Amino acid sequence: MIKIALDAMGGDFAPKEQVEGAMLAIKKINDIEITLYGRKEEIEKYLTNKERINIVDCKDVIPMGEHNPMHAIRTMTDSSMVKAFKATAAKEHDCVLTCGPTQAVVVGAHIIIRRMEGFKRPALAPIIPSLTTGQTVILDCGANLEVKPEQLVQQAQYASVYAKEILGRDNPRVGLMNIGTEEGKGREFENECYKALKESSLNFIGNVETKDILEPPCDILISDGFTTNMVVKCMEGTAKSMGKMLKDNLNRGFFGKIGALLSMKNLKRFKKQINPDEVAGGMVFGLKVPLFKAHGSSESYAVFSALRTASEVVRKDVNNKVQMALKNEAPLKDSEE
Amino acid sequence: MIKIALDAMGGDFAPKEQVEGAMLAIKKINDIEITLYGRKEEIEKYLTNKERINIVDCKDVIPMGEHNPMHAIRTMTDSSMVKAFKATAAKEHDCVLTCGPTQAVVVGAHIIIRRMEGFKRPALAPIIPSLTTGQTVILDCGANLEVKPEQLVQQAQYASVYAKEILGRDNPRVGLMNIGTEEGKGREFENECYKALKESSLNFIGNVETKDILEPPCDILISDGFTTNMVVKCMEGTAKSMGKMLKDNLNRGFFGKIGALLSMKNLKRFKKQINPDEVAGGMVFGLKVPLFKAHGSSESYAVFSALRTASEVVRKDVNNKVQMALKNEAPLKDSEE
Repeated sequence: MIKIALDAMGGDFAPKEQVEGAMLAIKKINDIEITLYGRKEEIEKYLTNKERINIVDCKDVIPMGEHNPMHAIRTMTDSSMVKAFKATAAKEHDCVLTCGPTQAVVVGAHIIIRRMEGFKRPALAPIIPSLTTGQTVILDCGANLEVKPEQLVQQAQYASVYAKEILGRDNPRVGLMNIGTEEGKGREFENECYKALKESSLNFIGNVETKDILEPPCDILISDGFTTNMVVKCMEGTAKSMGKMLKDNLNRGFFGKIGALLSMKNLKRFKKQINPDEVAGGMVFGLKVPLFKAHGSSESYAVFSALRTASEVVRKDVNNKVQMALKNEAPLKDSEE
Repeated sequence: MIKIALDAMGGDFAPKEQVEGAMLAIKKINDIEITLYGRKEEIEKYLTNKERINIVDCKDVIPMGEHNPMHAIRTMTDSSMVKAFKATAAKEHDCVLTCGPTQAVVVGAHIIIRRMEGFKRPALAPIIPSLTTGQTVILDCGANLEVKPEQLVQQAQYASVYAKEILGRDNPRVGLMNIGTEEGKGREFENECYKALKESSLNFIGNVETKDILEPPCDILISDGFTTNMVVKCMEGTAKSMGKMLKDNLNRGFFGKIGALLSMKNLKRFKKQINPDEVAGGMVFGLKVPLFKAHGSSESYAVFSALRTASEVVRKDVNNKVQMALKNEAPLKDSEE
């Protein structure tokens, strides 16, 4: 049985969507059990089926707009996120999922769950849609604003194991996000990363421009935490704004309205394709125990998707496979931390 | 009469679209005359009306995929771009437009046209659509991959004069692109820029997340040349990929096809809104003479739009107004170059 801890209070619509997502996961996946961390009374309002679901009562919640995540993680010891993370770090669970505030998750990852032996800079890696392969792993989405090239290579190694085991890609292709495709483009950082990736055992295909973010010639897109965060938020924002423009335009005029009505089902399919709720939650790569972070605005289906991915990461023993891969590369010197 | 130099050979569809764009501009704008730089024979194939249009014959063309722009600008002295830039630098024209390769344009801007007195780092600034105001000035789109905060403030000052004079915005609002809206977010660079912008005379409204790129709460979005380039290309790529997904989805099934057909006119309006051809070409801010760079893939209407903007920048005397604004701020020390 795979044991999953779920922070039931983190998220814009918690605990309702978290509890419903958990029940959906239990229904669809046979070999998991879930422990919900949060206010027992509130959770029980929505928990209509307790099969393979436990509750650990927690008084506090780290709020979505938390301004001092370090302070929150250190002092809110009875919060759902801190308790779920601590129990997972103590190996009471095989992995943990939260929809709580990203910066608190990143701090909690570092100081409670802690990084995997030899792994220097854990990275936040969501999955985004791809017109070429269906899904792309993109990182680092903001766990470390700046990294060293050798640390970025380690992150790419984790991503390669993940893409192989979870997305079923043979010999996953790694692309470095850059302002041009030719070698030599970008800042000194991009040039050093290019060299380091080329020298690694990874299947590095070179630079990829962000204009190809939704149809990249690779399985993994990588850059530092600042750049990737800017790019992913830009993609989400552009999609959202375009949706608004589209809706506005289709509703103009009589024939436009009829046309939009007849196209409605197809438009819904379109919306589903670009909806972040439809893709699995992001994972923090490089920790002692797998940690998953889904969107704050996740609804029950997104929570279920993330739980399904989490169980698969445990089932496929991804962390151990990464450790073996890291041992086959030259280990990083401590001075590179 | 406003004298505009046009590199007729730069661009994916040159010289046809350039020549047609020039004739359209002459027809619509009374106080301009245009000098076309390029292969006379090829230009004359498309030039059906020579009113207020001259040709300067040039044997060479800097190709769109030029790999060594520095070498090209220095050695291809009979190319359309170099000749147009040199004549403009010699004040034979009031401004210059090219659709040629961006990096060659940036190099040519620095070594032929040269920067405005006291202006440290010229910036490439396109206009992108905005759901809130119609148009946003975004910079630096790649003229300098890295800048100092004081240099970014100068760029924002140019952008403010431009937004006021060309886009008609009173007291233009400047937003710093960042990974979060609160002060203190981002790298050391963002924090220093935040402080410098706050201390300037500009109407700085704080950090803006890239998820709001198409509906920002400001008139100007600014970041360093690497980040802005990554973000703008991501926006263009997302829009393009979404267009493909949409077309694919609308065409599914019988009712979907009829619906799409009835909505066609509205879909075309939508496409026009996100089409970069519909917005004015980008300008290089901070040069001795105004230089405009339109998309390589520009068609005649985009060339016309850029010519219209170029003439307006001259008409409104933007460069002199920027110089006066710079004098009112503390001048940058030479050590900051």
